[in-house]
Amino acid sequence: MSLLNQINAPEDLKRLPQADLPKLAAEIRQLIIETCAKNGGHIAPSLGVVELTIALHKVFNSPEDKLIWDVGHQAYAHKIICGRRDSFHTLRTLDGISGFPKRCESEHDVWEVGHSSTSLSAATGYAVARDLAGKQNKVVAVIGDGSMTGGIAFEGLNHAGHLNRDLVVVLNDNEMSIAENVGAVSGFLSRTSSSEFIHKFKRETEQFMKHAKSDMGNGVIRFARKIENSFKGLFTPAMLFQAFGFEYIGPIDGHDLPLLQETMERVKKLDTAVLIHVITTKGKGYKPAEQNPSLFHGVGPFEIETGKVLKGKGGAASYTAIFGNTLARLAEEDERVVAITAAMPDGTGLTNFAKQYPGRFFDVGIAEQHGATFAAGLACEGKKPVFAVYSTFLQRAYDQVLHDVCIQNLPVVFALDRGGVVGNDGPTHHGVFDLSYLRHIPNMTLMAPKDENELQHMLKTAIMHSGPIALRYPRGNGYGVPLDQDLKPMEIGKAELLREGADGVLIALGSMVYPALDAAIALAAEGLNLAVVNARFVKPLDAELLLQLAKRFGKLVTLEENALQGGFGTAVLELLEEQGVQAQVLRIGFPDQYIEQGEQHELRAMHGLDKDGIAKSVRMFFKPA
Amino acid sequence: MSLLNQINAPEDLKRLPQADLPKLAAEIRQLIIETCAKNGGHIAPSLGVVELTIALHKVFNSPEDKLIWDVGHQAYAHKIICGRRDSFHTLRTLDGISGFPKRCESEHDVWEVGHSSTSLSAATGYAVARDLAGKQNKVVAVIGDGSMTGGIAFEGLNHAGHLNRDLVVVLNDNEMSIAENVGAVSGFLSRTSSSEFIHKFKRETEQFMKHAKSDMGNGVIRFARKIENSFKGLFTPAMLFQAFGFEYIGPIDGHDLPLLQETMERVKKLDTAVLIHVITTKGKGYKPAEQNPSLFHGVGPFEIETGKVLKGKGGAASYTAIFGNTLARLAEEDERVVAITAAMPDGTGLTNFAKQYPGRFFDVGIAEQHGATFAAGLACEGKKPVFAVYSTFLQRAYDQVLHDVCIQNLPVVFALDRGGVVGNDGPTHHGVFDLSYLRHIPNMTLMAPKDENELQHMLKTAIMHSGPIALRYPRGNGYGVPLDQDLKPMEIGKAELLREGADGVLIALGSMVYPALDAAIALAAEGLNLAVVNARFVKPLDAELLLQLAKRFGKLVTLEENALQGGFGTAVLELLEEQGVQAQVLRIGFPDQYIEQGEQHELRAMHGLDKDGIAKSVRMFFKPA
Ligand SMILES: [Mg+2]
Ligand SMILES: [Mg+2]
Repeated sequence: MSLLNQINAPEDLKRLPQADLPKLAAEIRQLIIETCAKNGGHIAPSLGVVELTIALHKVFNSPEDKLIWDVGHQAYAHKIICGRRDSFHTLRTLDGISGFPKRCESEHDVWEVGHSSTSLSAATGYAVARDLAGKQNKVVAVIGDGSMTGGIAFEGLNHAGHLNRDLVVVLNDNEMSIAENVGAVSGFLSRTSSSEFIHKFKRETEQFMKHAKSDMGNGVIRFARKIENSFKGLFTPAMLFQAFGFEYIGPIDGHDLPLLQETMERVKKLDTAVLIHVITTKGKGYKPAEQNPSLFHGVGPFEIETGKVLKGKGGAASYTAIFGNTLARLAEEDERVVAITAAMPDGTGLTNFAKQYPGRFFDVGIAEQHGATFAAGLACEGKKPVFAVYSTFLQRAYDQVLHDVCIQNLPVVFALDRGGVVGNDGPTHHGVFDLSYLRHIPNMTLMAPKDENELQHMLKTAIMHSGPIALRYPRGNGYGVPLDQDLKPMEIGKAELLREGADGVLIALGSMVYPALDAAIALAAEGLNLAVVNARFVKPLDAELLLQLAKRFGKLVTLEENALQGGFGTAVLELLEEQGVQAQVLRIGFPDQYIEQGEQHELRAMHGLDKDGIAKSVRMFFKPA
Repeated sequence: MSLLNQINAPEDLKRLPQADLPKLAAEIRQLIIETCAKNGGHIAPSLGVVELTIALHKVFNSPEDKLIWDVGHQAYAHKIICGRRDSFHTLRTLDGISGFPKRCESEHDVWEVGHSSTSLSAATGYAVARDLAGKQNKVVAVIGDGSMTGGIAFEGLNHAGHLNRDLVVVLNDNEMSIAENVGAVSGFLSRTSSSEFIHKFKRETEQFMKHAKSDMGNGVIRFARKIENSFKGLFTPAMLFQAFGFEYIGPIDGHDLPLLQETMERVKKLDTAVLIHVITTKGKGYKPAEQNPSLFHGVGPFEIETGKVLKGKGGAASYTAIFGNTLARLAEEDERVVAITAAMPDGTGLTNFAKQYPGRFFDVGIAEQHGATFAAGLACEGKKPVFAVYSTFLQRAYDQVLHDVCIQNLPVVFALDRGGVVGNDGPTHHGVFDLSYLRHIPNMTLMAPKDENELQHMLKTAIMHSGPIALRYPRGNGYGVPLDQDLKPMEIGKAELLREGADGVLIALGSMVYPALDAAIALAAEGLNLAVVNARFVKPLDAELLLQLAKRFGKLVTLEENALQGGFGTAVLELLEEQGVQAQVLRIGFPDQYIEQGEQHELRAMHGLDKDGIAKSVRMFFKPA
């Protein structure tokens, strides 16, 4: 008899006898595992917090009490408990349940998210608004240890501690973020209270007390320094968070339901800022995920019994893999090359690079701002830093790109993975703004390869370039085109005429080049003969070729997998205006709205960015008036 | 006999007898005071670090050793010592010495900056590059206590501590940033080793040791918690930075030259990450600045004897002041209104608001990311948060605007002060990108008032609006136009036809409206009769009016004080393309380069954005072919 079938809202959970909760947890896990095996998803983070989620909904009263999930990829149990059990099978699909909290899905989802480290700031806003309204509800932020390294988390912690409002922070510590944790913070999080601590403390204290009296004469300051030096290694998370103005409770076992509930009941009675340090196991309850939490952080469809990830459509290597391999090759030739990732060594294809060149590989943790500025510092000293980062996450470092890299005109390479729609992770993750947020920055060079072979040459080009340069490429597999062995820098700002035509021209960028070609071939069969250009560069444009084509045809179509506002097609409009060349232009790209989740091909088709959609728009545009 | 006259480079300083250094410091201060009295500048930060700068150049060997100044506004003494004594009188003027480090000025300026909190990341890059090259030079970052609250500083500290390279951080602690410090961090920085600390420590330790034995039976974890609780208030900066992986030295008196030199000599011998905590007095050596460091943080010309700031050209109130007054009025009518600043209560005009509504005013410190997301949290609960922030500093929160505010379509108001060129602070501070980095974000409404009266109505409009909305206005005085008492929301997306004309139309935004009108009047005298439109909205555009004008005239001129890439004129090009309307367009704005320093009027004139420049371009554009 299923318990989960009785749970349609948190009230139902509250009515369940305590003894039934472990069974409920198991059923929730089962649903998460089955759904992710089919749809893919952030299974390991979500499995890790099943008990924590049950305890939160048992003790607090959502939606009056506000539950704010950092990143939001761990909220599957929350979704299932909060009215989405029956729709959970649509997780991450077109028109289905989002993989992240979503306000339109449920009143229990009070904060939409996808990027890391925002929960403390959001919770502080919620807490202050509550106090201004004279309300009594609780505000709870759940944040992972990995997210704590993001600068905004620190900013939020600092302000929240200063305000000291009624606020609960649950630090969900699984001793890893997406990959292994980085930085000093993770170091002292792991230094939890232990017998080692006590023994050291006793020893130091006794030593210290012995000499205390004789040292007092040396003056207050020196004496104080002696104390500090004695206790140097004795710093604990409790001390850190207390110093920030939080009450600290923990660490406690995040899979011990009664302990979690008891602790939260206690915390609920307080009206100050409290941090509960909870230790959980990522992937808990599903062996393959427990054993390989990095792989199962966010995963595609897999076989439940074995945990074997099912391969996608075909054998062509991903852009990510080609990037990683090419960078390793280039690093062999050029010792100036160093690689940087912000907690995404696997996702950005740098795992092999890291093994081959451990001294030239830097995982800075979830810290994109630092990643960009650290790269700028390296470039000042003649290195060739390559910051491999998802398009959507470089948004965090917009100011660092503009202010630290580009004002100084430094040769930093931004390898923007997942440019364009990413698919099932939805609006928080689509990389459809990078052309717009990078193009207007002075000194920036911006390019996109039509396929994985061109990616190789563009990476070589980027490393040879003497200023800031970004190349963006899509998520997913390449076309399986042959890969040139010999890597050659391309001429900056030169486009490639791929196909001649008498009736007009399609100017396509990156992932739109092959679909544009396919559309041109289809339209040729209808008697419309279009030239096709692979633009390669968004900045600088191939002004000579584009102006010549504009004058020749008087009609241009631009194609890009980016927002239409401020992107590639816009650059073409600006060029024509600057040069005073009149031409009719049709820009094809994403409209001025956030793009929802779905398979990449579904989203492209919905927005007319596949062969048929392009053919349709282009046919209309070129049809005789 | 001047000592300073002998100092043309750090070598000269090294040759000077120790006994002469105080006199040199006094001469450097004199030059800084005299220059700032005339040119304005960041006098208080620079006066605070004169001894520190002398010590750094005495002990370290710039440029082999790298001195990296956080924010860079405190580097005046460094500039004077490093070959710029004779050109220092040109500080912050057109073609003069920059108010910030500048690589093209000197080999001793190794890191360009203007925004806060980047120095640790830059220094980490420098240190890693040095180690990869097998060099031995030192890398020193000088960072203020206020800058420590910025998220990227934390990210840098975390990574630097983790790497533990040979790296010196000088924490220049003057117990304030620009205004009073905010947040828990400043709390424990001020909690420096003191007799209070020692007495508390002794008391707690004795208490603790008394009960230690009997408590051991309660289990290791509880015992450890007891220790932590006993020592809760005993946390010191030393413990914090040690926990981050740094050696900690300090606090030491930052005006005691021998002590500074001795400490740095000692630190120079270490090859790990070291933080020197230095206490300085902001404005040191100039009484008015010591007494009012906030005013003298960055100041315009003043009278040396009295410290009285000299008034600018005229009596018209600044946009900043009108904004502040209007917001306070609106807050009286609407209790949902709350105001947020990131360490700029004076600069953004919120001082009075803070006094009148202390419970609804939030200074989050130098933490723009948190400021934006905190506002989003407030908006989720029905508040009307107004984040008043300089255009250039909101760049830091680009992702938070896009990901936290706009995806959720929350009614957060961004009051962007200093949109357009700011003048003497130069390229790091000009607000010439905001239209480009905000316009492509879905759900955003974006507007700019033509004068201070319209600013009032736009602020009312913003507060009534149900989604994200930004208004940007220039640095400096308004026009002294009459201010309507009655504030009315304006229709979103409606432009204003200011002047009719038969020969063409100028469509101007914000600060360009009056210059465009003036140009139109001048051109009318030549027989060219141009209509003038006050666009008001960048997003959404007044499509109806603009298309009608485009069809009527076939020729449009757009004017904006923003980068031409992706800005207002580009929005007009996009509109025409979307609607398939052919028209010849001339876009007037800033070119694709960083704009240098100079008076606002000089910069506008240089780039053809004043009346004469506009008239010239427009005349050419409309002249019969
Ligand atoms: Mg984690
Ligand atoms: Mg300070």
